[in-house]
Amino acid sequence: MPKTLWRWRVVLVRPRNPLNIGAAARAMANFGLNDLAVVEPYPASWREARSAVGAGAVMSAATAALNLAEAIAHATWVLGTTSGHSRMLDQELISLDELAAWLRLQTRRTRVKSTAQAAMLFGSEKTGLSNENLSYCHAIVRIPTAPECPSMNLGQAVAVCCHEIARLNGGVMRAAPEAALGQTLAPARLRASEPASIQSLEHVFERAIHVLDASGYLKQRSREAQVLKLRRLLIGRRLSSYDAKVLGGVLAQIEWKLAHPGGG
Amino acid sequence: MPKTLWRWRVVLVRPRNPLNIGAAARAMANFGLNDLAVVEPYPASWREARSAVGAGAVMSAATAALNLAEAIAHATWVLGTTSGHSRMLDQELISLDELAAWLRLQTRRTRVKSTAQAAMLFGSEKTGLSNENLSYCHAIVRIPTAPECPSMNLGQAVAVCCHEIARLNGGVMRAAPEAALGQTLAPARLRASEPASIQSLEHVFERAIHVLDASGYLKQRSREAQVLKLRRLLIGRRLSSYDAKVLGGVLAQIEWKLAHPGGG
Repeated sequence: MPKTLWRWRVVLVRPRNPLNIGAAARAMANFGLNDLAVVEPYPASWREARSAVGAGAVMSAATAALNLAEAIAHATWVLGTTSGHSRMLDQELISLDELAAWLRLQTRRTRVKSTAQAAMLFGSEKTGLSNENLSYCHAIVRIPTAPECPSMNLGQAVAVCCHEIARLNGGVMRAAPEAALGQTLAPARLRASEPASIQSLEHVFERAIHVLDASGYLKQRSREAQVLKLRRLLIGRRLSSYDAKVLGGVLAQIEWKLAHPGGG
Repeated sequence: MPKTLWRWRVVLVRPRNPLNIGAAARAMANFGLNDLAVVEPYPASWREARSAVGAGAVMSAATAALNLAEAIAHATWVLGTTSGHSRMLDQELISLDELAAWLRLQTRRTRVKSTAQAAMLFGSEKTGLSNENLSYCHAIVRIPTAPECPSMNLGQAVAVCCHEIARLNGGVMRAAPEAALGQTLAPARLRASEPASIQSLEHVFERAIHVLDASGYLKQRSREAQVLKLRRLLIGRRLSSYDAKVLGGVLAQIEWKLAHPGGG
């Protein structure tokens, strides 16, 4: 296996079939990945997958997360997956075959630490990723399936993507000197700060929602849709951790002001 | 899906688990392949896979073959698969990631008809492809798995390979004009004849074995190993159908002579 530039985490959101959880773990092991998180697993499925005969090291080390935000808290990049047709969303939709090129572009555009974590999300067998799940994603990767039979088995989708990740890790590695060159040419003080983690963006986001609620921006009737749209907007901006810190500070100030209308 | 230059057949050799047969069929459908043959399936597994709820068009159209030679009779190219480490064999071992380049090379080297069939073989869950199976292969494709966990689930291995075939069909198509150019430049009478099908090679081979048996070349003790070695040699030569016809004629003549030592 080529050395990994990014650390990859595979995230299964609400998988139902324990065999699929085990199959995903095995495919990861086959392609040298070892970080599996399962969001809101059905308790019986989770128990069965963990105790299955032949469950390997990946399955034993897998973590269950209460929600998606927790599972991707430390990720710098979040990629959703779909094997269906494109949905009407604001996010970038890239084919799995274009993933290597897309990642090279991100590496060049931003200063990604070699320890940066990228998460690839897979939805449940029945419903795939929800719009709320997708709102956390920087891009949606489409597995280029045939229109006549677009929907893939979960374990097989994970296998195909893990093979691609193993391949492109080599590709990203080869592209690294080029990206490093770009950084050397740019004046140090103009270097972009590293991208914000999802956790820090989520803090900013929660603060923003609080402010918008307090300010009466969010209407009861359309609240959910508005929240999704806003999160997509925030995630889509690819803020740096410095940006997130600044934005968080701004929002904290507004929040305080809203709570203390007579103060300051 | 890009238009296919070669027609691909997926061949499962003695699969045990009906779920794996179904999973292979589904992955094929996902990536626009539809020709599945199963060699010597366990009768119960075959019945279960065929009658499974959700078995799609690929499974319904799948054929059971009595042996591998029958399943690949009309194939021009035969590729074995392995996800383990390289074995000590005479065949070319190529990584799945190199398959596109390898196929382009074959297309350029030989005059492949647009209706030529390529077969990709997958061994049973427990033992993989036998040395006898591998002796039919022009090359062995290695799925580049991690040394710590090399062995893939059958359904997942088929999925990864089908995705690659769907991708490289696009690549082969793009390479076609180049190959066509080479043909235009070569004088018509020097054009290579199309590659021999496995069926015609197998006829030649049976005739050869008969001749070698009759001539006392094959020794009882080492017969099996000798036969495998000879088949590999014959397959490895990439004979054209014209070559096969000539060779078959030569052998027929020797055979007749051996049977009628006083004749002619």
